[in-house]
Amino acid sequence: MATKRDTTSHEAFTMKGGEGQDSYAQNSDHQRTGANITKNIMREAMAEKLDLQTLLLQNSCNTFRIADLGCSVGPNTFFTVQNIIDSVKLKLIDQSHEGRRGLEYSLEFQVFFNDHAGNDFNTLLKSLPEDKQYFAAAVPGSFHGRLFPESSINVFNSSYALHWLSKVPKEIVDKNSPAYNKGKIYFTSEDKKVIEAYSAQFERDIESFLNSRASELVPGGIVTFLIPSVPPNSKNRFEANANIIGNVLVDMVNKGVISEELVDSFNIPTYMPASEEVKSLIEKNGKFRIERSELLLRLFTEQLPDVRSACMHMRAVWEGIFKEHFGEELVDEIFNGYEKKLAESTFLLDPSFKTMGQLFVIKRT
Amino acid sequence: MATKRDTTSHEAFTMKGGEGQDSYAQNSDHQRTGANITKNIMREAMAEKLDLQTLLLQNSCNTFRIADLGCSVGPNTFFTVQNIIDSVKLKLIDQSHEGRRGLEYSLEFQVFFNDHAGNDFNTLLKSLPEDKQYFAAAVPGSFHGRLFPESSINVFNSSYALHWLSKVPKEIVDKNSPAYNKGKIYFTSEDKKVIEAYSAQFERDIESFLNSRASELVPGGIVTFLIPSVPPNSKNRFEANANIIGNVLVDMVNKGVISEELVDSFNIPTYMPASEEVKSLIEKNGKFRIERSELLLRLFTEQLPDVRSACMHMRAVWEGIFKEHFGEELVDEIFNGYEKKLAESTFLLDPSFKTMGQLFVIKRT
Repeated sequence: MATKRDTTSHEAFTMKGGEGQDSYAQNSDHQRTGANITKNIMREAMAEKLDLQTLLLQNSCNTFRIADLGCSVGPNTFFTVQNIIDSVKLKLIDQSHEGRRGLEYSLEFQVFFNDHAGNDFNTLLKSLPEDKQYFAAAVPGSFHGRLFPESSINVFNSSYALHWLSKVPKEIVDKNSPAYNKGKIYFTSEDKKVIEAYSAQFERDIESFLNSRASELVPGGIVTFLIPSVPPNSKNRFEANANIIGNVLVDMVNKGVISEELVDSFNIPTYMPASEEVKSLIEKNGKFRIERSELLLRLFTEQLPDVRSACMHMRAVWEGIFKEHFGEELVDEIFNGYEKKLAESTFLLDPSFKTMGQLFVIKRT
Repeated sequence: MATKRDTTSHEAFTMKGGEGQDSYAQNSDHQRTGANITKNIMREAMAEKLDLQTLLLQNSCNTFRIADLGCSVGPNTFFTVQNIIDSVKLKLIDQSHEGRRGLEYSLEFQVFFNDHAGNDFNTLLKSLPEDKQYFAAAVPGSFHGRLFPESSINVFNSSYALHWLSKVPKEIVDKNSPAYNKGKIYFTSEDKKVIEAYSAQFERDIESFLNSRASELVPGGIVTFLIPSVPPNSKNRFEANANIIGNVLVDMVNKGVISEELVDSFNIPTYMPASEEVKSLIEKNGKFRIERSELLLRLFTEQLPDVRSACMHMRAVWEGIFKEHFGEELVDEIFNGYEKKLAESTFLLDPSFKTMGQLFVIKRT
């Protein structure tokens, strides 16, 4: 019987590296769809909201610095970053009649790709676009803390990463807490105390994220981020998915493959906020004002994935954290069980389960 | 019989990654000795030559950026970088009576660790010192070209890396050239045409290196580098070593293990300049003046390594490039052959073979 492992390490919170069939790089179409849909919205936001006058003239600097937080191993991060650069260049050309002609040629871009230290940066750095027109750098570490010097980044982006918590809230693994999450690896809508603990952790994390970015952002710069969220009157698709895997683990406990304690000590460190929740946290923090907020209604609801590709996607994202806690030798059994239960479930076809992308564009107040 | 492989890729020019017994991380004491010896010289150079007034006041910036070029996987790069940071802080404290008190606390450091894209950045980034007081970033790419935005780096360092050429000079693999290096993988002092080709490549590479750094350096900043060099009236230890491996390969051709053509098409892409050579190239380039130049006479001559550790060291550095050209399956045979021939040779004990470290501190003219 497998025994408990330490899953406090951030290295578990990383996507499957390399470029193999089961890698994140080969199974992130879902995230790519998001990047495509947001492309035009981000272009508009840059055109309207980026204050190039302040960014370039006041800082008397010809370097424009971009950071993508939670970049994983690519290739989506490369598309997003290129979109930001193209948007800035377009805006510079638009402004050229205002006496800044030629700046679009002399401006240099530096791009920082950030993820946890356990991310497969080797794959990322080897697959940088050959024709990239920027200086690239990889930055290891948690975006819930400081990653860059003060006033050094012009545009931050984060796509599908802010729903990862900095840690599992401690109450839900504390046997003496009313929020103790026994026999589950996530919550259902009935588990009010567990939800509260997750929500409070998410609030602390968003607060740290915003405070760090407020220090690092150059005056006039912007932060854009895309986060999964649950719209009003909808059921949380991720919650349903996570609980299917939870049921697989309970079956494995019943068969004596793993201990009950191993399941009780494991919880998934993500939280899908309700669509109004992020907005109110940004307002509560007070360091940023929301320039734009879009619920991307069509992002997932019209795409009903087949069981096989849904499972491949889940595994690419989640394999690392399951391997860390349950051991490599059990990962196949867990995800095979998940695929089987998913095939028996009807929820993939149920339109009331929704998790949508919510895009924010924010600036310093 | 093994056939020819492409060794034009920069990915071959990297140290053995990971943290295993045969890794560069575990076999770089030699380089570490260099780092220790140069520590005090670099501290003095920073104290005397770093123009903090220009760096901090003129640039009205509280970020001090350092780049270590050819950093490999650590840990030596961490010691070198920390030494630079400590030197800057000491200088700030010294200057505090001049009205800049407190700046040593508010100044933020950002460190860029650079090496080829094939370097094992995962190992590097996972082993960053836990108590580091700087923002870290990894930068992939050749330091013979541009890596950073204009005027963005305050101090550059490069330790034991500039003797790597950007490529094998093309004449020495051209059958129709008088510099064609048949049957060898390096040169001896008799091969005048081959030496000329290596020396010309080294000149082009140093020129590109200096031009790139001249663009990237902030006014008032400095470049320090430590390069192996051969003092007057000495024999080149690296040349002797490389030719021993060359003889192993010729034996393997004679035994029919590899083709003659495989050896003819392989040449080691490094060049150990004579001690006056780098000085004259810096002067010829004209973009920098030499603030300090030290021949570290005692660096290698008093350390006579035993055969086993000399071999472990050579393998940690060279395994990658031999694997790329000759194939993984032949690497053991090559280095076992090298160890055997090295044990039969007396050159490790011969004091006339010298390769010393030469430290330069240069500033923009």
